[in-house]
Amino acid sequence: MLKYPNGKPYKPKSTTSNANPIQKNKDFSFGNRGKTLEDEINETNAYYLSRQIAIIHKKPVPIQIVKVEYPKRSAAVIREAYFRTPSTTDYNGVWNGYYIDFEAKETESKTSFPLKNVHEHQITHMKNVTSQQGIAFTIVRFSKLDRYFLLPFSVLYDAWCNMKNGGRKSIPIDTFEEKSYEIIPGYNPRIDYINAIKKLISNGE
Amino acid sequence: MLKYPNGKPYKPKSTTSNANPIQKNKDFSFGNRGKTLEDEINETNAYYLSRQIAIIHKKPVPIQIVKVEYPKRSAAVIREAYFRTPSTTDYNGVWNGYYIDFEAKETESKTSFPLKNVHEHQITHMKNVTSQQGIAFTIVRFSKLDRYFLLPFSVLYDAWCNMKNGGRKSIPIDTFEEKSYEIIPGYNPRIDYINAIKKLISNGE
Repeated sequence: MLKYPNGKPYKPKSTTSNANPIQKNKDFSFGNRGKTLEDEINETNAYYLSRQIAIIHKKPVPIQIVKVEYPKRSAAVIREAYFRTPSTTDYNGVWNGYYIDFEAKETESKTSFPLKNVHEHQITHMKNVTSQQGIAFTIVRFSKLDRYFLLPFSVLYDAWCNMKNGGRKSIPIDTFEEKSYEIIPGYNPRIDYINAIKKLISNGE
Repeated sequence: MLKYPNGKPYKPKSTTSNANPIQKNKDFSFGNRGKTLEDEINETNAYYLSRQIAIIHKKPVPIQIVKVEYPKRSAAVIREAYFRTPSTTDYNGVWNGYYIDFEAKETESKTSFPLKNVHEHQITHMKNVTSQQGIAFTIVRFSKLDRYFLLPFSVLYDAWCNMKNGGRKSIPIDTFEEKSYEIIPGYNPRIDYINAIKKLISNGE
């Protein structure tokens, strides 16, 4: 029989996409302080995986590799490589027969989510996903407020098109309260976005 | 309005996971010669994307980044990084509401597919995907025969468990002919695996 890794909760090493991995993984051991949204979502995904609730992974950062060295008796070392622009969002996977696809974004603002945090390729990708009946959304953390929302793609896309037509360049927190799904952070799972997806589906969005 | 990239077929740069990207992308311009299965699947995925048939991407190779330099007026350069073991398969995405997840494997053998080409983490991942009602499979190319098959996860898993119980370490080509879906390579799409998935679904697998 096939075993899941030792029956223990599966804990992937977090992908070090950041220039300063030490600073990024600061954890003051109480509450959320010092954790990035990425850390919190990775923990949540590890929880979902260990309980077989959902299979969602963060995609590795795309890299263009130019030079690799092969030292004797040790692992290959990449000596020259460059960051590439992703063509998709950061997270995807499957839950209960649904294709799940999302991006995670943080803002320091207390009043609105600036759309400059979102890239054209992410909009294009999420639109494509939606056309194929996948579920696309953005998890937005208002860091200063310690509030989290699951923002359905339809709401983001309306705001994006509106901006392209000269409208406002951010989504006010009122819109989040009205049209998205607030996620109250917990201990485990930390950011229970699957629960928010259930609400989204039952609303037919 | 949102536009797909210029209306032109979307062509992602192929991820250079290989130590020798030059050799890998050899293309003798007629037929399949010199192309890897990965190249062929990337082309197929670009075709599907451009026609909005399915949204399937290859995952980047996971890298542990140790050192990054930031030269003035030019892009950040990764100066020390290591390859990590992936925890999933190489390809995933969405088609027609279905979560699609697969690995691509080539063999030089003319008679069977050696299971040493498959890794435990891939089996675990595909089993998890299947439990969540996703569609998991392996595309196998018998390079010497120029034959391609979509091998459903259920068939691979039976062979894998059998091997773990002391059974044979490969899947004979007869089993492919009986229990998998042959894909006849074409011009565009090169490897029309979505068509094979349709057959798989209509067979209730």
